[in-house]
Amino acid sequence: MPSLSMYEATVPPFVKTLTNMKAVLEKAVAHAQAKKIEETVFLNARLYPDMFPLADQVRLTGGEPATYQDDEKTFAELLSRIDRAIGDLKALDPKKFEGTDTREITRPVRGEPHTFTGLNYILHFAAPNVYFHTTTAYDILRHNGVEIGKQDFLGKID
Amino acid sequence: MPSLSMYEATVPPFVKTLTNMKAVLEKAVAHAQAKKIEETVFLNARLYPDMFPLADQVRLTGGEPATYQDDEKTFAELLSRIDRAIGDLKALDPKKFEGTDTREITRPVRGEPHTFTGLNYILHFAAPNVYFHTTTAYDILRHNGVEIGKQDFLGKID
Repeated sequence: MPSLSMYEATVPPFVKTLTNMKAVLEKAVAHAQAKKIEETVFLNARLYPDMFPLADQVRLTGGEPATYQDDEKTFAELLSRIDRAIGDLKALDPKKFEGTDTREITRPVRGEPHTFTGLNYILHFAAPNVYFHTTTAYDILRHNGVEIGKQDFLGKID
Repeated sequence: MPSLSMYEATVPPFVKTLTNMKAVLEKAVAHAQAKKIEETVFLNARLYPDMFPLADQVRLTGGEPATYQDDEKTFAELLSRIDRAIGDLKALDPKKFEGTDTREITRPVRGEPHTFTGLNYILHFAAPNVYFHTTTAYDILRHNGVEIGKQDFLGKID
């Protein structure tokens, strides 16, 4: 028996993980200032040479389907982008999510258009993608010595 | 209007991410064999000295609420554990999930019991935790040169 809406399953969890990521990035800014580390060191940090650096991990968490320029060069710009993504999510009308579980949606996947049901899209693509990039942004900062723990990633437990 | 069940929102996505993690670990095993790297090097790898190593990241993805010994010492044992977790998930009866969205559940959080609604538990605690540890296991292996990409993490796109 269905008991949760497509809206509940996506918007509040994504707002929460973006809010938590913002707090993690703010800890990185404070750490960089305290240790006199240029913020570009963190923004360009990655876990392996051919991997997206921190700035791209942050961009990749919240760009769809609104369009963003992907040109943020500072933590301040990335934080503004997260605020914009959170604002965009909060502005969505829950009523517009009705019926989206079975509705088809075509989105680019690895350069090719792919048609999902709304249900598969949110549970098997959007959510894993969002958490993949928020966690990897966290892991890059953790690897670079910013003093964060899983409680920063999870945020306040409701 | 509710359109998805608590079962749909949890069991299939968790089975999928565990199945994908298994494939990622199998790539690590193949990489270790090809490069003649002891598998304990990967099992003990971490991104920062005070962080849980790979073996614990894997354990932390799928131990609740069944009990596990947390004593796996090889990739083979970790892969068996994932199989067991997937089997446990697949054995769950979808009917038993009815009404769990509003039902209260008390689970340990940071050493203290915390009471969640079922909805908050799955969307704001269980799912972020599962993805946090599957992604971090992936990131540890990525950092150690195993040739994996996000497509391995996401698996087959339905």
